[in-house]
Amino acid sequence: MTNRNPLTHPRIPAAGESALNALCGNLSIGTNGELRFAGQDVAELAARHGTPLYLMDEDRVRDNCRTYTEAFSRLFRPGSMVLYASKANCFRRMMQVVAEEGLGADVVSPGEIWTALRAGFDPARIFFHSNNKTAADVAFAMERGIGYFVVDHAYEIELIEAEAARRDLRQKVLLRITPGIDTHTYEAVNTGKVDSKFGSAIETGQAEAITALTLAQPHVELCGFHCHVGSMVFAEDVFERTVELMVGFLADVRAALGYTADMLDLGGGYGVRYTAEDPAIDIPRKLEDVAAALRLSCALRDYPEPLLLMEPGRSISADAGLTVYQVGAVKRIPGYKNYVSVDGGMSDNPRYALYGSHYTCLLAARPAAEGELICDVVGRCCESGDVIQPNVSLPADVREGELLAVCTTGAYNYSMASNYNRIPRPPIVMLHNGTDDVAVRRETLEDLIALDV
Amino acid sequence: MTNRNPLTHPRIPAAGESALNALCGNLSIGTNGELRFAGQDVAELAARHGTPLYLMDEDRVRDNCRTYTEAFSRLFRPGSMVLYASKANCFRRMMQVVAEEGLGADVVSPGEIWTALRAGFDPARIFFHSNNKTAADVAFAMERGIGYFVVDHAYEIELIEAEAARRDLRQKVLLRITPGIDTHTYEAVNTGKVDSKFGSAIETGQAEAITALTLAQPHVELCGFHCHVGSMVFAEDVFERTVELMVGFLADVRAALGYTADMLDLGGGYGVRYTAEDPAIDIPRKLEDVAAALRLSCALRDYPEPLLLMEPGRSISADAGLTVYQVGAVKRIPGYKNYVSVDGGMSDNPRYALYGSHYTCLLAARPAAEGELICDVVGRCCESGDVIQPNVSLPADVREGELLAVCTTGAYNYSMASNYNRIPRPPIVMLHNGTDDVAVRRETLEDLIALDV
Repeated sequence: MTNRNPLTHPRIPAAGESALNALCGNLSIGTNGELRFAGQDVAELAARHGTPLYLMDEDRVRDNCRTYTEAFSRLFRPGSMVLYASKANCFRRMMQVVAEEGLGADVVSPGEIWTALRAGFDPARIFFHSNNKTAADVAFAMERGIGYFVVDHAYEIELIEAEAARRDLRQKVLLRITPGIDTHTYEAVNTGKVDSKFGSAIETGQAEAITALTLAQPHVELCGFHCHVGSMVFAEDVFERTVELMVGFLADVRAALGYTADMLDLGGGYGVRYTAEDPAIDIPRKLEDVAAALRLSCALRDYPEPLLLMEPGRSISADAGLTVYQVGAVKRIPGYKNYVSVDGGMSDNPRYALYGSHYTCLLAARPAAEGELICDVVGRCCESGDVIQPNVSLPADVREGELLAVCTTGAYNYSMASNYNRIPRPPIVMLHNGTDDVAVRRETLEDLIALDV
Repeated sequence: MTNRNPLTHPRIPAAGESALNALCGNLSIGTNGELRFAGQDVAELAARHGTPLYLMDEDRVRDNCRTYTEAFSRLFRPGSMVLYASKANCFRRMMQVVAEEGLGADVVSPGEIWTALRAGFDPARIFFHSNNKTAADVAFAMERGIGYFVVDHAYEIELIEAEAARRDLRQKVLLRITPGIDTHTYEAVNTGKVDSKFGSAIETGQAEAITALTLAQPHVELCGFHCHVGSMVFAEDVFERTVELMVGFLADVRAALGYTADMLDLGGGYGVRYTAEDPAIDIPRKLEDVAAALRLSCALRDYPEPLLLMEPGRSISADAGLTVYQVGAVKRIPGYKNYVSVDGGMSDNPRYALYGSHYTCLLAARPAAEGELICDVVGRCCESGDVIQPNVSLPADVREGELLAVCTTGAYNYSMASNYNRIPRPPIVMLHNGTDDVAVRRETLEDLIALDV
């Protein structure tokens, strides 16, 4: 994850900068002690675009993409693909950038397909996931020439076969398999266990059964298998263990059904650093281990090495994002707690409310100032659970009107945003080479009632 | 909560109906065993409007409003008001209905103000809450003649005084006080504790201090006090205890500052039944206890009885709502668990993901059928945490294509909905006297990228 635009990211060494920089290389401190993001003054951007404000560092997105694509081209069979997990953050400009970087797209709904296509994405490079595609979804995706369906269960195979027959085409698919791995990540994003709403389990025999069913369909072309053991993977050997299990399954399928898979999609993605306490991950190094495990597993079973696919979302977009809020009420309750309210909240970032997620909060004017006030940074929603982050250290004199930045918000913030409390969603401003362009404009009050009849 | 439209809600006794009817009187079973809501066939409505679909029973909304307004006119001083907590479910038609029923509005943002005004709401009957009104919010609300600001903290008083002075008017306000009551409701909706992001605490002296500050402002007219001890109040005596504490505070303020309050806003609202296990609440009966406590507390302190205000949201809209989904994948994992997927999820109802909320799920074609399959009803979002309700009993042969209804979704579903996974938000169809009118149309794929520049 080296910075490829050193000129646009000038580094001025300052107190606290090393800590910031360790969190993400696109955070720095300017000559007046101010927070800079992607080389730009955060306060100036807020003045220009208002708050709350989602900033996206386009150069960081590109760097993150290249971290994967360069390692992939070095380590895996030609034709192996990195798919961007669109659900992390899906808007038109974002999809353009990842397409330009040569990634494919992992999409989960017609809405994500539509956004990708309107960004000019090649439909052949789109992989359509979802545990519950409707018949209408299947028709929608096939009409638009979506490259691959990642099939979750037997009923979906029936839907695809019927629709492909009607259109007289042969639809490429991968089958989603649950390998039975518990990744010990958050419960809510832990998807590789046998007990899952996703996929067909190896252990129960359902995985082999759906393979046989798929191979029997005249209008479906089975290209390989997908699995997903969870996002935010930090543990040492999760993907290696997955590779071993999956190649074992591939060999069993070959023995039982005479089918050799050409694609193995490991799903998921690596974790990112939300706080300085989170471990740093050397993704190319990790991918080398995956490649070694793949080679070894295939060699042991005399299985031809399949194309490898992965679906990073968070590790592409999260640290490319920064949210800027304006501080409103600062409430000090002697003997109890302190609250610093901001002009957004769970409506633009529900991750603490949903998962108790950790974030790093900084004052834009003085990110390196001593943090002496322990406070909860809370939102403006009329709900006690509307917390951005509890137990944050901020300067003792934090005051109304200051700008507060929350780091690493480029994934699962805009994509999960709501209009709770009828709060308009913030705009997304893309930062690139010193420029700042609005990619998604701010919602207006009139937008909020646009669908009211 | 009597049903005022017996003709439009015909009751055909059937197995299971009494259980349904106990949950909410607007649920019934038709001659073919089908689920009816507000007297209408749920499957027919789904066929006409598609799924997922939010249904709102306008007659039930009106009944719920009248339960409060009739009790209020009987029990409290003339001029006392019921304010609808808009955050529960705020769209134009909904705000029209509550305005027609004579309620005021509790709003928390310019977006809610805008929606209320566009519904023709009298601004004088709007009460503007929020723990973090910005200077722009204050100007926006004053420009539109909003009746009352419910002031959270001292900084807001400064903002209001400055804006009112600039406009040469005197702005009416209530002050939000935290009485220090722990209601033992959900943590996230528990707002009356001293340790809260909301209001000024009696215990710390901050409540009296902000009262003195407010009385000293030439352009602010203090009308009384607000408190909010949490929503979903079931406990026997929460509001009575609150009344005693608040009247004690009023008396202390009178003694200390010579100010007599004319309004006491108890905030909050009563709980509703999400499942048959939830207790039923006799709201008029409860309000009689509140009235008795108010009379007694005032008499003991020789305090003139103030106008009483309450802010029900959930108990106005929740049981007026029903969500209809279509079942997709039905997954039986032998030895583990069963999953029934629907074509919506946490994007239209995030309450289980956020709070572990309980809901009652029924098959539209056979709501009274024996429930022999224990399953998790899950959504279509690409996330393990996307659960509508775990451990639901459904007929053993539940199958793809069936319609599944989730009851009591009229509060905090549409208002908290997101486009997570780029799933368009469902339409809201209002049911009234046998008619079904689209109040909010279904979002389209093009709507999803409408703000993309």
